[in-house]
Amino acid sequence: MSEMAGYFYPRTASGRSSLLPAPPWYYSGDLLTVEYRTDPARVRRLLPPPLEPAPDDPGAVALIWADWQSCGASGEELLDPVRAQYRECFAVVRCRFEDTVYSRCVFIWVDTDFALARGLVQGYPKKLGSIHQTRPHPFGRAAPRIAPGGTFAGTLSASGRRLAQAVVTLREESASSGFVNAHPMAHHRWMPSVEKGAPDALSELIASGTASVEAGQAWCGDATLQLFESPTEELADLEVREIIAGYYRQVGVTWDGGTVLASALWPR
Amino acid sequence: MSEMAGYFYPRTASGRSSLLPAPPWYYSGDLLTVEYRTDPARVRRLLPPPLEPAPDDPGAVALIWADWQSCGASGEELLDPVRAQYRECFAVVRCRFEDTVYSRCVFIWVDTDFALARGLVQGYPKKLGSIHQTRPHPFGRAAPRIAPGGTFAGTLSASGRRLAQAVVTLREESASSGFVNAHPMAHHRWMPSVEKGAPDALSELIASGTASVEAGQAWCGDATLQLFESPTEELADLEVREIIAGYYRQVGVTWDGGTVLASALWPR
Amino acid sequence: MSEMAGYFYPRTASGRSSLLPAPPWYYSGDLLTVEYRTDPARVRRLLPPPLEPAPDDPGAVALIWADWQSCGASGEELLDPVRAQYRECFAVVRCRFEDTVYSRCVFIWVDTDFALARGLVQGYPKKLGSIHQTRPHPFGRAAPRIAPGGTFAGTLSASGRRLAQAVVTLREESASSGFVNAHPMAHHRWMPSVEKGAPDALSELIASGTASVEAGQAWCGDATLQLFESPTEELADLEVREIIAGYYRQVGVTWDGGTVLASALWPR
Amino acid sequence: MSEMAGYFYPRTASGRSSLLPAPPWYYSGDLLTVEYRTDPARVRRLLPPPLEPAPDDPGAVALIWADWQSCGASGEELLDPVRAQYRECFAVVRCRFEDTVYSRCVFIWVDTDFALARGLVQGYPKKLGSIHQTRPHPFGRAAPRIAPGGTFAGTLSASGRRLAQAVVTLREESASSGFVNAHPMAHHRWMPSVEKGAPDALSELIASGTASVEAGQAWCGDATLQLFESPTEELADLEVREIIAGYYRQVGVTWDGGTVLASALWPR
Repeated sequence: MSEMAGYFYPRTASGRSSLLPAPPWYYSGDLLTVEYRTDPARVRRLLPPPLEPAPDDPGAVALIWADWQSCGASGEELLDPVRAQYRECFAVVRCRFEDTVYSRCVFIWVDTDFALARGLVQGYPKKLGSIHQTRPHPFGRAAPRIAPGGTFAGTLSASGRRLAQAVVTLREESASSGFVNAHPMAHHRWMPSVEKGAPDALSELIASGTASVEAGQAWCGDATLQLFESPTEELADLEVREIIAGYYRQVGVTWDGGTVLASALWPR
Repeated sequence: MSEMAGYFYPRTASGRSSLLPAPPWYYSGDLLTVEYRTDPARVRRLLPPPLEPAPDDPGAVALIWADWQSCGASGEELLDPVRAQYRECFAVVRCRFEDTVYSRCVFIWVDTDFALARGLVQGYPKKLGSIHQTRPHPFGRAAPRIAPGGTFAGTLSASGRRLAQAVVTLREESASSGFVNAHPMAHHRWMPSVEKGAPDALSELIASGTASVEAGQAWCGDATLQLFESPTEELADLEVREIIAGYYRQVGVTWDGGTVLASALWPR
Repeated sequence: MSEMAGYFYPRTASGRSSLLPAPPWYYSGDLLTVEYRTDPARVRRLLPPPLEPAPDDPGAVALIWADWQSCGASGEELLDPVRAQYRECFAVVRCRFEDTVYSRCVFIWVDTDFALARGLVQGYPKKLGSIHQTRPHPFGRAAPRIAPGGTFAGTLSASGRRLAQAVVTLREESASSGFVNAHPMAHHRWMPSVEKGAPDALSELIASGTASVEAGQAWCGDATLQLFESPTEELADLEVREIIAGYYRQVGVTWDGGTVLASALWPR
Repeated sequence: MSEMAGYFYPRTASGRSSLLPAPPWYYSGDLLTVEYRTDPARVRRLLPPPLEPAPDDPGAVALIWADWQSCGASGEELLDPVRAQYRECFAVVRCRFEDTVYSRCVFIWVDTDFALARGLVQGYPKKLGSIHQTRPHPFGRAAPRIAPGGTFAGTLSASGRRLAQAVVTLREESASSGFVNAHPMAHHRWMPSVEKGAPDALSELIASGTASVEAGQAWCGDATLQLFESPTEELADLEVREIIAGYYRQVGVTWDGGTVLASALWPR
């Protein structure tokens, strides 16, 4: 297929229509995190074989809001920022595979097509939603500062229903912005067969992580988090039993590919 | 992976979060079509191996607007219509594979996540856009009638740029609503590897068509069509050299799976 | 100001930028209605002087979903349907002014700017929301028919929170599609002064109704309706105590101006 | 009307549904500006009586992108940021009234209802659009820095058509972020009568300006600007003849009311 160019579809002779450029992908943005504990059985239910629960604190969950600007190597998206800016909210747990602890995104919502497509590559099960996060700003009364007392809210809705809302009030500088999302991701990439009743056409377990991270000072503080029921969502199953902490951090990251950990091939 | 349910991601124990139910998928909607001819070389450039141009009228293109309501077998989406309604605009050409003429969607835009996900299954290379189509209505002055003189417009925009606009004025009843999109589709399903430089993890040629169609009277008439340039789109490469006709038709269709025509497996 | 043209802003020499053309305004669309009774005191609280409650059934409310295509006298919007199509959901009660019973829209959400602007003219207090309504279609399994058993849902969300959802199952043909929204509207048009502490710069009571109506057969049937709380909305205050009926009807209407019933002028 | 509370509609007993709180209104955000000159006759055409052109540089125009977070006195919107965040793009010229030079916004697009409503109060003729602006960020490769060489783009679309796109490359610190939008605004507030053929029900000339401003360092640099035609917009009439400069500045502002300069009352 050498005549068709483009990392993603639609592939054409020029590759110009491709929804995504090839990696590396760059991201600059603000992360608002609430870490909490749920019933470990709820986490376990979300881990398909061959994944096992994390050896300690298996009920730990991070719900993370991110307000991103992103681009490929050319950076051209930054000059047409509708192609660069998006927001996401994602729930992360931890798991174990072959003696290594991984993070795993179990639910995630974004608000653009290019972000959803990156999820297909990286194994994030993205759906579209409406995500908002208070933005810091150095001037005026209509924004918190990244300082003690700075209050940041995150909200998530999908299909017109509020799914989650969090409020984090910064208290002090912190060594990190949490532990749940601190490992490379262990994600599945599944694609059903087009043939009814056939096994998945694609079924892989992959590892995916950032190639590089540049970050500002992390802040931690108190947090509240409410999760709401929806007929088409199960985020609220990860019910909040105990808040661990809230965090805020600005980061710049690079993603430049992952690794296949295990794969099923279905003969034809 | 028997503990995880759900036709599509995110897969969970209950399957309730799945972005799509398993087929069959039902659609009821209105189709506005402009068929025209472009330079056959432009069509050829969009056909990757092993596809060949159609033996006759290889430059024929259909640009189709569809205003859909859709659901799975349970029909529950119809009671929460944000999950059922979407619009799309797609460009179709014809091609040949192993002596059979197929249709092939080369570019397509939709406005919901569930529609984009169905595209991943069916090989339609969907991106998000803003699509509008004049709706018929039996009452009042703010709608055409499905009758001679009824005038229908279709517009397509993506990333804030107008990509296409068409106007069709119905003239007479027609035996069909065109010939370009009249064959089963021959589509590729591609998914890049998560590993940089590796071959595609999924690379299939599939055939996909409707399991059943119920349709109203087709109408044809005169049509105008304008295509506009965009730095991230190549629809305008299929430049309009000669309008063939415009069509309008209401349809109900069922999609219930396709067939793999050819597949590449990449050993690990 | 004769050099500036345009019915609405922005006014220019040509008038071409005006968000609205001058009336008459034409609408073709589908109306889904649930009529019910709430505590009459809740309705009364929403009626500012000089309005009084309706003499009978003062607690009657209609929640109406409308899926519209609309245009001005030139009809040009129908050829660029992003300018013509919108959806709304509105709550109507009845009241009395000077011995005449009027309808009055107390809450309303729309999804376009031109619809919001028409509300400013007609006294509908429009905010933006996400509104969906099951659409009938003659073909396929993904749509109800306008016939006994046809089931239609309406949903309303604003700021990512679901505010209302209704389901109506058609049972029989009906002489009307309800009584609550059957009178001309008695609406206030208020605009605060730009000067802090000053009285409203505009304060009128107006009567507004359709100049002509063309309608299909009305249908009635059973209905369910749920209203949900929101920190910025009070629709749920009109709590559902007793469902009266659900209705479905397709209509074409013309609006061609209203009448000022009472006005306050603030001298400068 | 003392029983109804709420600065804006819908007015209720509690005032909780009001689309806007009473001023003061606070804003924290980022402003990207391109100042340029057009044919002074084009500016003059946009100035209704009693406004006259500015005495010098009457063809000067500023096209400004703003990425805002905003709230009322309670600040509650910051905890539900869908109520606080919006973007706008607006064209400003200068004019003279009674020997004072004012700025005047002639065209403006926003992306939320609360922003559009504030425009009704402040005399900004707001329509809905899709507005994007490159955001600075201190980390990573997917964002410019507020420093020499930092490149910022602004784009504006409405109804699916691109109306404007600008690119500003910062060169040096600047004493200001331009001169065109540096004066209090002289705006008209118009509302047509509900009665056909009657004069406007509201017709005022108001002055409106910020009560306080807190700002970061202004930066200036080179700029490019393209304006595009649309059948419903006239921004492109202010054609770019000569770029003056591009600017970037972060600001916090307070708006706390304006003044009526002239008013027409229509007797009934």
